[in-house]
Amino acid sequence: MDKRPIGVFDSGVGGLTAVLELHKILPGEDIIYFGDTARVPYGTRSRETVCKYATQIVHFLASQKVKAMVVACGTISTNLSGAEITSAAPNIPHITLVDPSVQAALAATRTGRIGVMATPATIRTNTFNNCIAKSMPQAEVLGVACPLLVPLVENGMTNFENQITRLTLEMYLQPLRDFGVDTLILGCTHYPLLLNIVGDMMPGVTLIDSGACAARATKQALEQGNLLSKNQTGSTIYYMTDTINNFASVAKKFLFEDIEDQCHHILIEELDNF
Amino acid sequence: MDKRPIGVFDSGVGGLTAVLELHKILPGEDIIYFGDTARVPYGTRSRETVCKYATQIVHFLASQKVKAMVVACGTISTNLSGAEITSAAPNIPHITLVDPSVQAALAATRTGRIGVMATPATIRTNTFNNCIAKSMPQAEVLGVACPLLVPLVENGMTNFENQITRLTLEMYLQPLRDFGVDTLILGCTHYPLLLNIVGDMMPGVTLIDSGACAARATKQALEQGNLLSKNQTGSTIYYMTDTINNFASVAKKFLFEDIEDQCHHILIEELDNF
Repeated sequence: MDKRPIGVFDSGVGGLTAVLELHKILPGEDIIYFGDTARVPYGTRSRETVCKYATQIVHFLASQKVKAMVVACGTISTNLSGAEITSAAPNIPHITLVDPSVQAALAATRTGRIGVMATPATIRTNTFNNCIAKSMPQAEVLGVACPLLVPLVENGMTNFENQITRLTLEMYLQPLRDFGVDTLILGCTHYPLLLNIVGDMMPGVTLIDSGACAARATKQALEQGNLLSKNQTGSTIYYMTDTINNFASVAKKFLFEDIEDQCHHILIEELDNF
Repeated sequence: MDKRPIGVFDSGVGGLTAVLELHKILPGEDIIYFGDTARVPYGTRSRETVCKYATQIVHFLASQKVKAMVVACGTISTNLSGAEITSAAPNIPHITLVDPSVQAALAATRTGRIGVMATPATIRTNTFNNCIAKSMPQAEVLGVACPLLVPLVENGMTNFENQITRLTLEMYLQPLRDFGVDTLILGCTHYPLLLNIVGDMMPGVTLIDSGACAARATKQALEQGNLLSKNQTGSTIYYMTDTINNFASVAKKFLFEDIEDQCHHILIEELDNF
């Protein structure tokens, strides 16, 4: 039994889709969430910049004595290496989006044709393709960079009938449809908010919610490491680098609850003290 | 005659629309451009964060001994006050987007119904409305926050027939059309790349390019202050906080030339040394 909190982090609010799933499947766990809203988005920046920002967050969460870290951001999961995370936070197990969603995709695919939608910074790394190839060399994988989806989600354009979002998705989904994918990894934690629309536009294709997969892999890792808290109810604290208002109002769309009282603003320059 | 460079800055690449105009009307001037590409966009962040970032840039440009500063960013122009800029860079004249584009709009309007398209952070301040009211109290002004336009421009969705961009613009332009504006300020330096599309969708409406207005106001200020360089040809240096590649490839869309050789990467943490 281990009462330390789980650390979950993302460039912004996308990682809250993983928090939502953690609340469901691990209701007794305390969670510390970190969203770098003063520097979001990461998905259109260089690897150097992504890694610099992400390493600061890993240091901060390590200082908060978390028992595990969930990298609930596709861009960080694919740009910061496991060795870099371990070096910044020794002896703290971490779960990225990649392995859990690749395992789910491999279990789901019948044809071996798998699609990946993610940010440009994620697609550039080929991490999903390489990870799939290790377990299923004959798989055929198409990755599509979707730079406009994060702004659409962050600006609340997620209603089922939204024509702008549908037209934008059509641009990204057409090559995946032409390629004949039967399984599609949503490789960015913002995208589950578009799950219904993508499902409607890609009938018969299995959609993999990478944030939810990472949450389930976290439960498994805690069980195996005998690290579960066994509390009845856990609490969640949210840290963000821009002001609380913006974060709390967007977070409501992800979590369906008001979390303003659980929010703490932390300045980027304070991060270097940890 | 004053050979010192002109400083021009923006959260990212948008301010290059002002540089393009400066190159045309002041070809003999040296220019130092600063784009904070590791932290763009500013237009969806809080005032506190915008001002903190922008003040670092003002300090940097002051250290480069510029003779004038062009705030070629609508969000900075409307969130950082003139007093804050002067305090960070004493004795250096500065030109924001606001006054020059408001003067142009007041000269153009026949009906006194003026529209402003800008980022959420700009619209929130009411700066354009207040500035118009000072000179023309009877004017009726409608500001529309357009959070998706910067991502569209940064991702190159600027071709005349682009249906996603047109549908997005329709959402922002409809209330301006209903309001009956005869003059529309593009209050963000990214938007001139959409000038042709907006013009096509708003026939009969005078469009005000705020970056170009700021550039012309800069020429006037240098003439009045006897600060022109009188060189035949000036050179431009570009600083950016993320890597050079990204910047140079997007900059090509703004400047129609390859500027990679004139680019210098500067780390955010180095900014605090100036």
